[in-house]
Amino acid sequence: MSSEITNEYVHALDRQFVFHSWSIQSTLNPLVIAGGQGCTLWDYNGNQYLDFSSQLVNTNIGHQHPKVIAAIQEQAGSLVTVAPATANLMRGEAAKRILSHAPSTFSKVFFTNAGADANENAMRMARQFTGRDKILSAYRSYHGSTGSAIAATGDLRRVPNEFARGHVHFFNPYLYRTEFHATTEEEECERALQHLRRVIECEGANSIAAILLESVPGTAGILVPPKGYMEGVRALASEFGMLLILDEVMAGFGRTGRWLAMDNFDVVPDLICFAKGVNSGYVPAGGVMISQPIAEFYENRFFPGGLTYSGHPLAMAAIVATLDVMAEEGIVDNARMIGQEFLGPGLKALAAKHPLIGEARGVGLFWALEMVSDRVKKTPLAAPVMAQMKAAFQARGLLTFIVENRIHVVPPCIVNPAQVAQALAIFDEVIGEFSSKHAA
Amino acid sequence: MSSEITNEYVHALDRQFVFHSWSIQSTLNPLVIAGGQGCTLWDYNGNQYLDFSSQLVNTNIGHQHPKVIAAIQEQAGSLVTVAPATANLMRGEAAKRILSHAPSTFSKVFFTNAGADANENAMRMARQFTGRDKILSAYRSYHGSTGSAIAATGDLRRVPNEFARGHVHFFNPYLYRTEFHATTEEEECERALQHLRRVIECEGANSIAAILLESVPGTAGILVPPKGYMEGVRALASEFGMLLILDEVMAGFGRTGRWLAMDNFDVVPDLICFAKGVNSGYVPAGGVMISQPIAEFYENRFFPGGLTYSGHPLAMAAIVATLDVMAEEGIVDNARMIGQEFLGPGLKALAAKHPLIGEARGVGLFWALEMVSDRVKKTPLAAPVMAQMKAAFQARGLLTFIVENRIHVVPPCIVNPAQVAQALAIFDEVIGEFSSKHAA
Ligand SMILES: Cc1ncc(COP(=O)(O)O)c(C=O)c1O
Ligand SMILES: Cc1ncc(COP(=O)(O)O)c(C=O)c1O
Repeated sequence: MSSEITNEYVHALDRQFVFHSWSIQSTLNPLVIAGGQGCTLWDYNGNQYLDFSSQLVNTNIGHQHPKVIAAIQEQAGSLVTVAPATANLMRGEAAKRILSHAPSTFSKVFFTNAGADANENAMRMARQFTGRDKILSAYRSYHGSTGSAIAATGDLRRVPNEFARGHVHFFNPYLYRTEFHATTEEEECERALQHLRRVIECEGANSIAAILLESVPGTAGILVPPKGYMEGVRALASEFGMLLILDEVMAGFGRTGRWLAMDNFDVVPDLICFAKGVNSGYVPAGGVMISQPIAEFYENRFFPGGLTYSGHPLAMAAIVATLDVMAEEGIVDNARMIGQEFLGPGLKALAAKHPLIGEARGVGLFWALEMVSDRVKKTPLAAPVMAQMKAAFQARGLLTFIVENRIHVVPPCIVNPAQVAQALAIFDEVIGEFSSKHAA
Repeated sequence: MSSEITNEYVHALDRQFVFHSWSIQSTLNPLVIAGGQGCTLWDYNGNQYLDFSSQLVNTNIGHQHPKVIAAIQEQAGSLVTVAPATANLMRGEAAKRILSHAPSTFSKVFFTNAGADANENAMRMARQFTGRDKILSAYRSYHGSTGSAIAATGDLRRVPNEFARGHVHFFNPYLYRTEFHATTEEEECERALQHLRRVIECEGANSIAAILLESVPGTAGILVPPKGYMEGVRALASEFGMLLILDEVMAGFGRTGRWLAMDNFDVVPDLICFAKGVNSGYVPAGGVMISQPIAEFYENRFFPGGLTYSGHPLAMAAIVATLDVMAEEGIVDNARMIGQEFLGPGLKALAAKHPLIGEARGVGLFWALEMVSDRVKKTPLAAPVMAQMKAAFQARGLLTFIVENRIHVVPPCIVNPAQVAQALAIFDEVIGEFSSKHAA
């Protein structure tokens, strides 16, 4: 079949039959992708793209890593699927490897298909373990699209989907657009913690099962928490008998230059949710790492949750191979080094040069450029301009992850200095061109 | 690694690190599975099992179908994952094939990871399309474990998980344990429809977005609706401006001896949810088939739902290959023929012989034996006895799917007469032995 395939055929097939996430269907013009390798993707016409989106920030080991592909093919050849109630080699090996990157208090893994259902199950455990009802989460957050995960989500995509009860939102730190009238990171941190304490007091601490928080809020803008914030949240959770659930779905497994994003802070949560980077999304998988007291709680109590593909052997084989490859090839260290020495400084230099960039912020290979038409007023660059900019990047062969007025710069963790230089040059050129038209 | 692997190693790894669905962790003794082929699975000691569970009723094409395995391996070699916003060949081909089995009014497919999120998104669409709030679903049903799917679920696993609002439950037909004091299928049907109408009237028709119903309720007991019921539900939905969502996650794609279980009835729903059989669960996937008016509705309106792995290429390649193989090899016809000529009559004969069997019911390769300690009082056989019986089947090399007091007899749709005879003989022997101890 594939010898005659064209971009036009695939595009037409998509537009005729496929319904897309988060969009107005008639406005779609999806990019055709035929294959990829490393940081590169291509279509059927031989056009190549440098992937600085990692798709949905999931292909941390890049595209088509040969060892992981081989492991998937091998597992497919022996046992592709089996029920979750069985014992399966790859499932055990995957859980063991995952826990080796968690704090020593963590003892078990519950596997799900993705990020949303990881959060669903962590919230389920927190509610049962504490016997309390409410989940506190941040306005600037995304936790997935299923019933409770979308209600826990803070961004406005929550609003048409608020069918789950027991969710309360608070403001998380974001100095660039502070909710707390702060002028320094220190002040932002202190005031954000004070605000969270007040929300807890006003909601009634005894009604709150858990605080659910992305270790580094991703889709919301890559909002690296200020020094002391995570530690302060942990202290509040402990003070009031609430659990701390860290959502590491986007930030985990290399993205921030650490195995887990929480390793950037001095914090030990009670539950950790993961997906994406754990196997680069090569086969759908996610899960919850469970600390000892909660695992213990379920030793003699029924856990009321489950799913057909929990611990799916093919997905598990992809996790085992991915984590092994990440360790063997130093991919996490590469992410930290490239972020510190090339990507971070490069983006900061662009921000210093182009008035359209309000702020460049991030850690590891998890960066955002906040685009503004007026640097003083911090006016977000308008959506149509952002769309034009995305198209301009794409026309130059660069794929980016655009959210609202931000360019999320999130290449695979295997990216090299030359590829960073190439992307930075395209950013420089395109943003320069747009600056002349759109900067105040 | 695999040369030294033992059952003991895999079992120990599982018990140390893996947290299981729907269970009390300390009571688990999971069966080790190393590999499989067709209707057979085996462990590392060379023990073989005849799989009459299809795992969680998903491996409709059996284990390790060589053509589907080859297709997965080939897709893995070219493009294992890509973002849902792109256009992808396998995704378009999968959607096209799926729609070829739906009524002609269906025009698009939204892909999810599994059954729960298929139902989540169908409910989301129904609420938006109608501007109404409530979802009606059956007490005897299972729709998945995420926030809204578990609240839509009727069985008692819902209760510790009721954090989603807008769900109302009604009684569906089940003559063997009638809620309506009926004595015939006809009466059960008429009264169940009358009851549903009264629930709609009492909830206020204008508040109800949709009726969500399994075409043949599966986990709840394989409750084939009586003639006229589905048609009656469709008529009620239309009369009151509600949508009809059919959950085909377990019953669809061959299980009932038809491509879709709804093909057993004269009913056209508005949305169809699928997962499991669509690719036998070889790679996690599910989705919603969308009829034209609803697809049209979203042409110019934002759809507020999504997920990272929507239309995952590896899962899509497995769908394409599975549906092609099912058509080429006449797997659906085989399911119908084996059900009609071998499995159905065989189970009915066992029911006639053994007083422990209260009823044998089903369609295609979707059958249940309802086990009772007293045939007149219909007393469900006690859970510990069912567990012993499951162990006795397993000791004879037969894997079954036990739910409450029922043996769900759900082999892969490729099963042959000899395998059916083998399973029937084991049922006969074990149930005979238990009868002497447990029948009233
Ligand atoms: C932090 C976070 N949590 C959860 C999710 C949901 O994951 P999924 O799309 O796999 O359900 C995402 C997806 O982007 C995420 O970024
Ligand atoms: C009818 C039905 N709907 C939904 C589901 C949920 O599917 P999943 O476990 O893939 O989320 C199931 C699972 O057994 C099911 O039988």
